[in-house]
Amino acid sequence: MTWQEASFSRMGAQLTGSAIRQMGILAAGRPDLISFAPGYPDPSTFAWQAYRDIADDLLRGGHEDTLQYGQTRGYAPLIEAVVPRLRAQGITCTSDEVLLTTGSQQAVDLVTRLFVDPGDVVLVELPTFTGAIAAFRSSGARLVGVRQEADGLDLAHLDAVLAAERAAGRRVKFLYVIPNFQNPTGGILSLAKRRALLDWSAREQVLIVEDDPYGDLWFPDVTRLDETRPIKADDADGRVIYLQSTSKTLAPTFRTAWVVAPTAVIARLDVAKQSADLCSSSLDQRIVHQAIVRGVLDRQLPLLRETYARKRDVMSRALSAQCADVAHWTPPRGGFFLWVVLPEGIDTRALLRAAIEAQVIYVAGAPFYVDGTGANALRLAFSAASASRIEEGIGRLAGVVRAAVGASAPSVPQAGR
Amino acid sequence: MTWQEASFSRMGAQLTGSAIRQMGILAAGRPDLISFAPGYPDPSTFAWQAYRDIADDLLRGGHEDTLQYGQTRGYAPLIEAVVPRLRAQGITCTSDEVLLTTGSQQAVDLVTRLFVDPGDVVLVELPTFTGAIAAFRSSGARLVGVRQEADGLDLAHLDAVLAAERAAGRRVKFLYVIPNFQNPTGGILSLAKRRALLDWSAREQVLIVEDDPYGDLWFPDVTRLDETRPIKADDADGRVIYLQSTSKTLAPTFRTAWVVAPTAVIARLDVAKQSADLCSSSLDQRIVHQAIVRGVLDRQLPLLRETYARKRDVMSRALSAQCADVAHWTPPRGGFFLWVVLPEGIDTRALLRAAIEAQVIYVAGAPFYVDGTGANALRLAFSAASASRIEEGIGRLAGVVRAAVGASAPSVPQAGR
Repeated sequence: MTWQEASFSRMGAQLTGSAIRQMGILAAGRPDLISFAPGYPDPSTFAWQAYRDIADDLLRGGHEDTLQYGQTRGYAPLIEAVVPRLRAQGITCTSDEVLLTTGSQQAVDLVTRLFVDPGDVVLVELPTFTGAIAAFRSSGARLVGVRQEADGLDLAHLDAVLAAERAAGRRVKFLYVIPNFQNPTGGILSLAKRRALLDWSAREQVLIVEDDPYGDLWFPDVTRLDETRPIKADDADGRVIYLQSTSKTLAPTFRTAWVVAPTAVIARLDVAKQSADLCSSSLDQRIVHQAIVRGVLDRQLPLLRETYARKRDVMSRALSAQCADVAHWTPPRGGFFLWVVLPEGIDTRALLRAAIEAQVIYVAGAPFYVDGTGANALRLAFSAASASRIEEGIGRLAGVVRAAVGASAPSVPQAGR
Repeated sequence: MTWQEASFSRMGAQLTGSAIRQMGILAAGRPDLISFAPGYPDPSTFAWQAYRDIADDLLRGGHEDTLQYGQTRGYAPLIEAVVPRLRAQGITCTSDEVLLTTGSQQAVDLVTRLFVDPGDVVLVELPTFTGAIAAFRSSGARLVGVRQEADGLDLAHLDAVLAAERAAGRRVKFLYVIPNFQNPTGGILSLAKRRALLDWSAREQVLIVEDDPYGDLWFPDVTRLDETRPIKADDADGRVIYLQSTSKTLAPTFRTAWVVAPTAVIARLDVAKQSADLCSSSLDQRIVHQAIVRGVLDRQLPLLRETYARKRDVMSRALSAQCADVAHWTPPRGGFFLWVVLPEGIDTRALLRAAIEAQVIYVAGAPFYVDGTGANALRLAFSAASASRIEEGIGRLAGVVRAAVGASAPSVPQAGR
């Protein structure tokens, strides 16, 4: 080790990359590889022409601030446009309770830095989003997992885990949850449990960080809008920090998301963001603002719900045809992901090598678990690939999985394949 | 204090905002206020039409990745375009030694997180950039200042400071320097001292973080290109982490900067960036890439040097005419800033109230000093305001300063005013 490397901080020395991002790198530049790995939106759904028109208008030079540094808090007209949208979701807030961030990942990171000292406990779902795990770990958090049931978090386990951490003298800073179309399970937290979590937060004085990138993407055939009501909507006492993003609806490039939290929290997140990146892109925030005020986002949402519901069907049917005897999954009611559980003893990380040889990739389950379990699970994103590529990819994956399980080909081929 | 506020981390509870950003907020929405506070480039220099043409081409939808998530490391063609430009500056590196960041502020933050544990020492110039100070403090660094002389850092003081910190048992992680047109002094570090710093780094095994946002903006009348040669250009052994930005040359909105460092450092910065914001904007990085390959940046640079040299002249002449007897300054040889020292006993923070009433603002000196000094200094950015606004603003400021010092109006009015 060089003296330069010996200079790393404790966290710096421990940094390990995201499994999902690494899959993205593997996928780059292999045209025939079918990637179900990253949670990328379908680029064919992007409103290209609308963004082109908007950019053309913005870059005429009429407003010199368009290319300048902006306020750290974010572009004020965008905040003003977001507030009534939040209200329509049931979240009553003022513009002082909103901060725009460089994607939701930055929001997770800033919230973590604001609350977590090394050794503090963050409670997470088992499994949960790897990007959040990475941000929590980089602040030195102790991560403790809470099991999930069919309708979301196991509240008895939550109580038990909290009690055990407190009995050990540790400070529990917040519970991180993704109630809508959870990453990676695709599950949805029941309304009864959402209300119970608010009571739990008040009783236990533990904050809830509610990450909601997929809430707008409910599938009309199986989900009602009211089932996606944010926990934050019923939070009268500032117990919930709510995160929402445009990356899954408009486009990831704009890196535009927002945090809704009490003003005292927002004011400090603002300061934390100053040292993180000074401000987000003025142009990108203006494009998102125009996409909202010109109705682009509202026109996109029904299209996106139909598109991703259809892709879920394609993937789910292909899996049913080829893997019903060797894999379990619950078709998701929204979002981007289908979570597959293989028989005990299969290690989906080890299986990736064969999958890559078969030109298909997924994200192995274990990185989503903070308790070392999940080896036999995997996450499939049906969001980005076309229907025909989804069918082809599941065919490839089925071959890999069946070979690993020692199963022969399924006896009844699916019509049309 | 609510239980939510009692949950803040130690760093979170200490967060204090940037003096510069607060000045920006003060300035917002007051059309007649003349701001010399933030280091904003002149928006009339932005290549609006070129960006409009580039955006129009990029948003035709020919490359679906344009609006998608990108690699954390950055848009590969932009990295490939940056490497030969670095080589032209004397910095020989491969693309594996470059990481693109969301502005240089993110680079400072990521480097800090990679190296600094709470209590570790970071050495900085007296005075230095407040945004860097904020990032260092948010990682719990102990900041120790090194005096500057007319040709930059006082090397004897550097040795003394290092020895004292080590004698106290502290780990010194890096020296942060801005060799070209330093923020806030506008000074330039001599070539002899640059070489001496490299020797110092090798001898003492302390890294150098070289922040160079202004290096391209040397003023042809008083500075030669070779005087801006980066320290990194002569670093054969990976002792220097070099930061460069497009915010002061193309435009701040693109939030596009880069770090040059040994591959082992870049690999970990990549992981740290994953949890900070996943990736920077794909569209913004493509606009910057096109601005480079289409020659926009190279056409801009001579124009920018002339523009900012002329503005320096305007401000310097106005100060000479109105404040020569009550203020000291050295006209800078590049960059955006003019650093003014008032008589001892004047507190420029207290003076800001009168300045705001007179509709002119600057940044007080003290926040740039980590040792509690600098109360009688102030930083003026001549970059953003027009020539006539600079003259008007210095007139207003002169009135405020002269009143505070107790001096009457200068006896010889400047011709033309």
